[in-house]
Amino acid sequence: MTEKAFPSIQGAVCAVPLRHHDTIVMGHGSGGRMTQELIQQVFQPHLSDPELLAGNDFAAISANAAGGTRLAISTDSHIVYPLVFPGGDIGRLSVCGTVNDVAMSGAIPIGLTAGFILEEGLSTALLESIVVSMAEAAKEAGVQIVAGDTKVVEKGKADGLFINTTGFGWIPRDTIINGANAKPGDVVLVSGTVGDHGIAVLAARGELGLETEIRSDVAPLNHLIREIVSSAPHTHVLRDPTRGGLATTLNEIACQSRVCITIREDLIPIQPAVSAACEMLGFDPFYVANEGKVIVILPPDEADAALKAMQANPYGHNAAIIGTVSESPQSRLLLKTRIGGTRILDILAGEMLPRIC
Amino acid sequence: MTEKAFPSIQGAVCAVPLRHHDTIVMGHGSGGRMTQELIQQVFQPHLSDPELLAGNDFAAISANAAGGTRLAISTDSHIVYPLVFPGGDIGRLSVCGTVNDVAMSGAIPIGLTAGFILEEGLSTALLESIVVSMAEAAKEAGVQIVAGDTKVVEKGKADGLFINTTGFGWIPRDTIINGANAKPGDVVLVSGTVGDHGIAVLAARGELGLETEIRSDVAPLNHLIREIVSSAPHTHVLRDPTRGGLATTLNEIACQSRVCITIREDLIPIQPAVSAACEMLGFDPFYVANEGKVIVILPPDEADAALKAMQANPYGHNAAIIGTVSESPQSRLLLKTRIGGTRILDILAGEMLPRIC
Repeated sequence: MTEKAFPSIQGAVCAVPLRHHDTIVMGHGSGGRMTQELIQQVFQPHLSDPELLAGNDFAAISANAAGGTRLAISTDSHIVYPLVFPGGDIGRLSVCGTVNDVAMSGAIPIGLTAGFILEEGLSTALLESIVVSMAEAAKEAGVQIVAGDTKVVEKGKADGLFINTTGFGWIPRDTIINGANAKPGDVVLVSGTVGDHGIAVLAARGELGLETEIRSDVAPLNHLIREIVSSAPHTHVLRDPTRGGLATTLNEIACQSRVCITIREDLIPIQPAVSAACEMLGFDPFYVANEGKVIVILPPDEADAALKAMQANPYGHNAAIIGTVSESPQSRLLLKTRIGGTRILDILAGEMLPRIC
Repeated sequence: MTEKAFPSIQGAVCAVPLRHHDTIVMGHGSGGRMTQELIQQVFQPHLSDPELLAGNDFAAISANAAGGTRLAISTDSHIVYPLVFPGGDIGRLSVCGTVNDVAMSGAIPIGLTAGFILEEGLSTALLESIVVSMAEAAKEAGVQIVAGDTKVVEKGKADGLFINTTGFGWIPRDTIINGANAKPGDVVLVSGTVGDHGIAVLAARGELGLETEIRSDVAPLNHLIREIVSSAPHTHVLRDPTRGGLATTLNEIACQSRVCITIREDLIPIQPAVSAACEMLGFDPFYVANEGKVIVILPPDEADAALKAMQANPYGHNAAIIGTVSESPQSRLLLKTRIGGTRILDILAGEMLPRIC
């Protein structure tokens, strides 16, 4: 849900053969290969700021003031349907998603802007409950909503409500955490069970006849991340596996860092109900979106400290070490399966799920 | 088009009797009184950051780095239809609108984030032409597009393309320019003809049988604004009269500054074709949106210098002194008419035009 947007437009390393589409199709919003194609074909030739090309979910801007502080900034448009789902709503999601993207740079998130596109006919009471939810999430994260904008479009020209949030924060001096920073020998951790958000949203639609107790994991992770970075000061990469899930996000990191990442299926935390739902629907849970999880990549001698710090936080209770980084010219993500085999996990080709973000 | 959003939630000064609506109606997006009602009823009770309540189109954030520099940040979602119109398109608009809002704080705009919501079926070639237009406008303004996000929604769930841009820049030490800063005795200037953008967009729809040569004035004003502030260092207020037009924007400033503003009808620059179109359609041009104009309010001894600086810039060619600020407990905008009368110009009540932003 938080943007995997404009990722991998650093290009050459993981360039893929491009297919051209004359019109936008749903797969262009998947966060996977088709999103990359769109970016490489339509955006990249014209927008080429180095921060944009870096392929992170944030930009880091040098402040002209002294002290080596940099400004981290990240933007995300939220289009989730339904607007309310078990465990959260579009308001909580829009705050947490952007707080998390800013925090993944190692920054302390400070504030957000919020741009609302309202569809004529939207219930005012529903809108207010979503604003309350935003306020609560912002309070939990310790950020301010500093500027806003509201627009209204005619009935049938939006899907109830879209919210863009853009977040900013300060990156402490000497902090270098980004997707290009994974090193051979590093260890890969994830802060908890994967796939919860995507399955919860999908079930809330009621379209697939799926009944489940699964709740979205949507949460602000900035406090958890401070604790990780305090315990493991040489953390190399932090990223939240949102749109496209764990497998797409790890592929992006492998591309940016030009390394091979190997994860072990038996170590990846997953709720049985999520496994069961995925099996029933034919989805791979490693490609299902999360909204309250973080991938951490760091040197092996700091892995235990980071793991303990994560497990001590309510949002990192089920954290686990799931893999390792090795040298590779090919920037691949490999999965060691339960039965001892190894297979390549590619980035999501198009859409797997009906749109959930 | 740039947000007049969350304005006047500074509240009490210009509080209006609130009407409650159970659902969102188009007037909630007008930028006028109904937008204020929505903000006061739904947003203000829950989101109350002082910068948000200040009622400007930007937030000013103290940097924790040294030097007294502050971060200016502003957000705006662009929903204009048609996507392309005489004089510009949604791409140029989305860059200029946000560059201008940042510049109105006296800041030097540095960069933008761009969040795209694409409707399934949108022409890829059209999207690319809009991205090119954004790149050109950013180049003209001298800003970078530093982070992006793309989402796709099903056909019928958006209006082709929505773009959120959020801009940021640095406010020089000791610069205090905002809507609460107009002082009795000040002079009011506008940088050129009013109403061009709104009428150009409306005509481009082809719905009203209106044929005209009018082009949108959409332009980045940051260079013009630097020239104004250099010539008139005690500038008190800068604001672009976008959604709701000149009259709504001056009303907002009167409210924020708790002053009376009086403008003279015969001094306000307006193209004859815009006048004629407004007369034919029954619109008041002072409420029609502009996208390349700035209102400047400053002490009388700097008015001539500011006027000269404006007239020397291509985007300020038709600049004029149009009014004065006086003391008042009632925060009113008064119009001295051509025939010598005086009438109150209130903020726009609901929608005057079909949605143009």
